[in-house]
Amino acid sequence: MTSVKQTILTGDRATGPLHLGHYIGSLQQRVELQHTHNQTILVADMQGLTDNGLTPDKVSSNILNVVADYLAVGIDPTLTTICLQSKIPPLAELTMFYSNLVSVSRLERNPTVKSEIQSKQFGRSIPAGFLTYPISQAADITAFRANLVPVGDDQLPMLEQTNEIVRKINRLAGKDILVECKPILSHVPRLPSTDGKNKMSKSMGNAINLGASVKEISQAVKSMYTDPNHLKVEAPGQIEGNVVFTYLDAFCDDKQYVANLKAHYAAGGLGDGVTKKILEECLQEILAPIRHKRESFLADKQELINILRQGTESANQTASEVLDDVKAVYGLNIF
Amino acid sequence: MTSVKQTILTGDRATGPLHLGHYIGSLQQRVELQHTHNQTILVADMQGLTDNGLTPDKVSSNILNVVADYLAVGIDPTLTTICLQSKIPPLAELTMFYSNLVSVSRLERNPTVKSEIQSKQFGRSIPAGFLTYPISQAADITAFRANLVPVGDDQLPMLEQTNEIVRKINRLAGKDILVECKPILSHVPRLPSTDGKNKMSKSMGNAINLGASVKEISQAVKSMYTDPNHLKVEAPGQIEGNVVFTYLDAFCDDKQYVANLKAHYAAGGLGDGVTKKILEECLQEILAPIRHKRESFLADKQELINILRQGTESANQTASEVLDDVKAVYGLNIF
Repeated sequence: MTSVKQTILTGDRATGPLHLGHYIGSLQQRVELQHTHNQTILVADMQGLTDNGLTPDKVSSNILNVVADYLAVGIDPTLTTICLQSKIPPLAELTMFYSNLVSVSRLERNPTVKSEIQSKQFGRSIPAGFLTYPISQAADITAFRANLVPVGDDQLPMLEQTNEIVRKINRLAGKDILVECKPILSHVPRLPSTDGKNKMSKSMGNAINLGASVKEISQAVKSMYTDPNHLKVEAPGQIEGNVVFTYLDAFCDDKQYVANLKAHYAAGGLGDGVTKKILEECLQEILAPIRHKRESFLADKQELINILRQGTESANQTASEVLDDVKAVYGLNIF
Repeated sequence: MTSVKQTILTGDRATGPLHLGHYIGSLQQRVELQHTHNQTILVADMQGLTDNGLTPDKVSSNILNVVADYLAVGIDPTLTTICLQSKIPPLAELTMFYSNLVSVSRLERNPTVKSEIQSKQFGRSIPAGFLTYPISQAADITAFRANLVPVGDDQLPMLEQTNEIVRKINRLAGKDILVECKPILSHVPRLPSTDGKNKMSKSMGNAINLGASVKEISQAVKSMYTDPNHLKVEAPGQIEGNVVFTYLDAFCDDKQYVANLKAHYAAGGLGDGVTKKILEECLQEILAPIRHKRESFLADKQELINILRQGTESANQTASEVLDDVKAVYGLNIF
């Protein structure tokens, strides 16, 4: 008996190196899932450009970094297809077909896009490519016949939009040529930034990258947000909102040890310098092998390019088949 | 001494067979220009789908008709590149790049799109692909390095939009990798519909197609709008707004003869039956050879497909080069 593997599409905007938030939120899961699923990871350079149209370096300079990040954490290109969005023309072509099936007002109602537009402060100058990126995502998902997409709660409207398009195309076709997708919802809470204020972001300087040096890790942990009212070691400290403990929960395997530390800190008598030292040791231990692997992958850029090229070739095959199916629905397979 | 030929991009949405309005408005000009210019004609099936997302037959069933129309009027595939938009992936890819450089509000301000949205009565459900089609047109124009685009006055905002994109890309590149375009403005006034009311349109049944049968031509001329107050032959008739005379002006080569007819009609004593008979003879004479050629081309669909395929291959070469140039600007030429 062969079990039919389910198909996952996932990926990252190539707008910066990956960090601990990615590690805990998606990368570890991908390393697991690659053994049991057909998994494609899209390095989403075109999507990265939707809000970097005039700052393309931010995207192009990070493509190979992101691939090195993948390999360093254990994503295996013999198990996972790693591919580059801009080198898969059927994705752009499918986007053009799907664009005629989605109204502008439907896009404007998309809650994810709405909140992103607010947070990016585009004002009246939202790039067309940004408003329409849910259509491009639908192209990405359907082009690989993915039926599973790992997302956070906030991304569910994207999958709804994709499935609306899938149903329209299937209705036009009179049969199911495209696959509806379901979310794989992450059960890991989003990792806070080191300053406890925002989403992690490289440009904010509040994230610990997978390639962070020993010194960068040390500095990041030392400047981490704790309990601002915990002024004396003897005084009781607050655990909630204390980023050091959130990180210890996420990265320290010895849950009992962390529970004891929390009790001690809450009762008083445990200083932030000590908790930070414990967290730093833990992060240094996790990140040292990742950093070394990442460096050795980045030392051979040609090999990184080869891996990306091979994955992209395989991705193009699948995506071309789906495009052909869609073009047949439109009667455009005349040659 | 070799003179450098200028490059023209033109084309038609493949949403219906071409008619006398196309013949007088653009086709005759193209037959002339193909001898002195590099001319590419795009069969714009993807653009046709922007407002036919759920009625794709209207597009796919007309592609080869339109190619047959071109050949029948004398467009020569050895002089003009005739190509199919949906088979040129770089057009979709360039559209994706350009989409990030144009804001939604800029698209909404486009006067051509504004008036088309009104006339098509989309209301709140404008397809995204329709709002963004000026971006796709910019991709079409720039992909062939066209510096000349034949347009009517109402299409000038499209060329403005294209040139804005060209300047943005060239600024990013730090050099002129894309070519700005200029209009070739048509001096031929738009041919009215046979009912004198609207733009010609196949769905309105008020156009005379290039492939119209003898009987269809006869019926169309007989039902043509003239002077509704010209009830008796003896009475003076009005020339202005009289579609029969507008068509005689457009299609009868003997201008003196038409001038005499007009004087006679205005003075009284010339019946509409007579003027219609004269016009019908003239149109039958023009359309008979076009109809025959059109039929013989349509009798060999494989040959039509071959012509379109060859033109499309050549178009893909040019468009791929331009895409490569744009991708280099974005640093995305890593493999």
